[in-house]
Amino acid sequence: MLKDWIKSEKPADEEMTSRLQKARAQLNGMQMAIKENKLPVLVIFDGWGGAGKGSIMGKVIKNLDPRFYKTETLSKPSEDELRRPFLYRYFVRIPEAGKFSFFDGSWMDEVTKDKLLGNTDADDYHRQLTSIKRFERQLSDNGYLVVKFFFHISRSEQKKRLEDLSSAKSTSWRVEKWDLWQNKHYDKCVDVYDEYLEATNQFTAPWYFIDSKNRKWAELQVTELLVKSIEIALQNKNRAAAVLQNTFPLKQMPRLSEISLDKTISDEKYDKELKKLQSKLADLHNKIYHAKIPVVIAYEGWDAAGKGGNIKRLTAALDPRGFEVQPIASPEPHEKNRHYLWRFWTRLPKDGHITIFDRTWYGRVMVERLEGFCSENDWQRAYNEINEFEKELDDWGAVIVKFWVQIDKDTQLARFTDRQNTPEKQWKITDEDWRNREKWDLYEDAVNEMIQKTSTEFAPWHILESNDKHFARIKALKTVIEAIEKKL
Amino acid sequence: MLKDWIKSEKPADEEMTSRLQKARAQLNGMQMAIKENKLPVLVIFDGWGGAGKGSIMGKVIKNLDPRFYKTETLSKPSEDELRRPFLYRYFVRIPEAGKFSFFDGSWMDEVTKDKLLGNTDADDYHRQLTSIKRFERQLSDNGYLVVKFFFHISRSEQKKRLEDLSSAKSTSWRVEKWDLWQNKHYDKCVDVYDEYLEATNQFTAPWYFIDSKNRKWAELQVTELLVKSIEIALQNKNRAAAVLQNTFPLKQMPRLSEISLDKTISDEKYDKELKKLQSKLADLHNKIYHAKIPVVIAYEGWDAAGKGGNIKRLTAALDPRGFEVQPIASPEPHEKNRHYLWRFWTRLPKDGHITIFDRTWYGRVMVERLEGFCSENDWQRAYNEINEFEKELDDWGAVIVKFWVQIDKDTQLARFTDRQNTPEKQWKITDEDWRNREKWDLYEDAVNEMIQKTSTEFAPWHILESNDKHFARIKALKTVIEAIEKKL
Repeated sequence: MLKDWIKSEKPADEEMTSRLQKARAQLNGMQMAIKENKLPVLVIFDGWGGAGKGSIMGKVIKNLDPRFYKTETLSKPSEDELRRPFLYRYFVRIPEAGKFSFFDGSWMDEVTKDKLLGNTDADDYHRQLTSIKRFERQLSDNGYLVVKFFFHISRSEQKKRLEDLSSAKSTSWRVEKWDLWQNKHYDKCVDVYDEYLEATNQFTAPWYFIDSKNRKWAELQVTELLVKSIEIALQNKNRAAAVLQNTFPLKQMPRLSEISLDKTISDEKYDKELKKLQSKLADLHNKIYHAKIPVVIAYEGWDAAGKGGNIKRLTAALDPRGFEVQPIASPEPHEKNRHYLWRFWTRLPKDGHITIFDRTWYGRVMVERLEGFCSENDWQRAYNEINEFEKELDDWGAVIVKFWVQIDKDTQLARFTDRQNTPEKQWKITDEDWRNREKWDLYEDAVNEMIQKTSTEFAPWHILESNDKHFARIKALKTVIEAIEKKL
Repeated sequence: MLKDWIKSEKPADEEMTSRLQKARAQLNGMQMAIKENKLPVLVIFDGWGGAGKGSIMGKVIKNLDPRFYKTETLSKPSEDELRRPFLYRYFVRIPEAGKFSFFDGSWMDEVTKDKLLGNTDADDYHRQLTSIKRFERQLSDNGYLVVKFFFHISRSEQKKRLEDLSSAKSTSWRVEKWDLWQNKHYDKCVDVYDEYLEATNQFTAPWYFIDSKNRKWAELQVTELLVKSIEIALQNKNRAAAVLQNTFPLKQMPRLSEISLDKTISDEKYDKELKKLQSKLADLHNKIYHAKIPVVIAYEGWDAAGKGGNIKRLTAALDPRGFEVQPIASPEPHEKNRHYLWRFWTRLPKDGHITIFDRTWYGRVMVERLEGFCSENDWQRAYNEINEFEKELDDWGAVIVKFWVQIDKDTQLARFTDRQNTPEKQWKITDEDWRNREKWDLYEDAVNEMIQKTSTEFAPWHILESNDKHFARIKALKTVIEAIEKKL
């Protein structure tokens, strides 16, 4: 792509001035439409060092209301970011609905730089490209406009600019070692960039090359392309996206109705096992801390199935400095304004730590599906999107344990009634619980579909038979221990 | 893709039966919605020989009304097809709006087979992939639903099936040499298919793998995926697509207002030159016939600019067995029901032949744009789509000559008045001509934009200054001669 790219003739100065004036006014005028239509706009400025990404971004944002945009400079990952999944630092920075985010550099930098410096092998590189394509596709599919610019200058132009910048005291700090390396290995960079650009040139988020020799011309190209892309995105507001086929290895799972719930454990055995397993888990917690292995534990289940008590038996064994419980309620407004997985990406543990999610991203295919909080296309795509999310965690090296805490309908009724009749438990039962109970069959269908479609080999569901809560707690501990041991 | 693909577990027979019943009914019920929404649906059955593509297609269409579908079996290109551009035989078979076309095999066969047999080099292969990606993208962008299935069976399953087919007299004809070759070189095929599938897995037309070991299961997968894809396509009826950046080398062209129209030629010189050039062209016509070079000549220009007379001076030199003039009027209903370039693809010459288009595919960015016969997104995308079309002609080896026949507004008025006042010329002037004349300035802007954006190095516009028709005719002859000589 980059190799064959032919730049358009630069217009005469007069024409540029009048087009720029028009395009700036259009872009400025679009801010309200973006806000009203809740369109999130992610604009990526990639390209050669010294090509003027920063200064053109400066010109574009000067034209915008500061309440409607954020800028992000993606230089080296911080120490904290290095302890998260590859996409983490990018995913947490996605724009809010109705606003722009301008990225000075993107994931392209990280991936192509590693490739150029020989820090990545072919398999890793392929895996990263796959992650990036999934990430950009998920953004488009979930209503994001992703506009990708590659700022292009020739080798000699780059050389001249870097020399000019270096020679002046006030600008020499802007020349980085990497820019000089790029210029020295320009042809090699072209090869690697070309391959990357072609691989990530999805038609839902295509690359646009910006001829950056002349700054006014570069600003004009960027502004006009932004205007055009936003127009199209506004027109496509309610676009549905293809429901892609599963490509992950799935485990065969039982349906909820096939699960026998008469499993029990004696009190005596429970006490003994609990003690033994908790001490084992405490020991493993130290080991994963030292081995820097992250652990993600996800709980879903019926109301009153005993999730809370189950989680407590896990956390009782853990060092409080090394774990966090994340109770998941309805999303806050700032969370609703982003990709539905954003609030889970931002809650991931650092490596060596454990995060326990009390309710999870599976809300998308349960409550959001059944209550109509998202469209049918949204929840149907979500199985694959969630598998992709968990694949990122797996690639990162995480232990992933997902629990469905299962009880039968009678047991739920007994527990609801008990809560209602016990003053100190009344806070635990709400009208919503009763309303959800009425939809038991619909939920059961949804849960069955979820378990079938998201029990990947790398992140399978485990059913906790919880009519006997003691039994479920022991099984949870055993499952977590086994999963960690397998990874160590 | 193919290498990592994990098939889902086949459901129990009972479940398959009930799901199949439901999916068949849904698909059947969708035929009216497809018709009403004028959705064209192209379904591709690719995959291993012996995987059951044909028999599953048979089951799917049994469920449909024969008025709503066509089937296409794409075996070897015919002799006639071999004399056309690579995409020709595929483009001419695209479905009508509101109907299905089922393809048994697709462009994938041709391209991967050539690659496997070593009939194609890396450059050719890359060029073919590029053509295919453009083709599929253009179809999606123009409102087509493209559903691509790859029927997958293991090597041993394929072997068993081919042996079974061969052993029975009634079915042995169905085993082709190619199927046996495939089975013998199964791993090599997997490599080549995998690369192809990944390269063409655009999210607007993704690949779906069909586990084809069990026929009922294969039919169920195909039917359910069709139902889902159609649902989404109906929802996206008015989707706008990205206006991609030009990637072709463009020539710098003058604006119409900069063209000096005072060029003339004396009668004497005209007669002499005309004779000389026509005899030269007649000679070249023989040469391109023998060299099997196709020639496409496109005329656009103002009403009364002298296109007809100009074309006559060309054709007078040509052997009638080797050329065709294609006058282009408003599209017929069956043409309107297809991609707007379809009626031009179907009118392309064979190699060694000349086709002269009197008005062309550029109607999209002139009359269709100005009269609102297509959406803004449609005509804005069309510059690139047209450049891609002409690139296919160029890759094919065609001589492409595009003429804009230019006159000034006064000259048009004089010629209109003359036509009005001369009984034998009155048929040449209509109310529409007068209406178009009123929109001269809008047309001029559109023509300027068109000439700037579609004067590629491989298919540039040539301006014929036609206030003096004689001058324009001589220039046309010279231009065609030069273009042919360059190619010979």
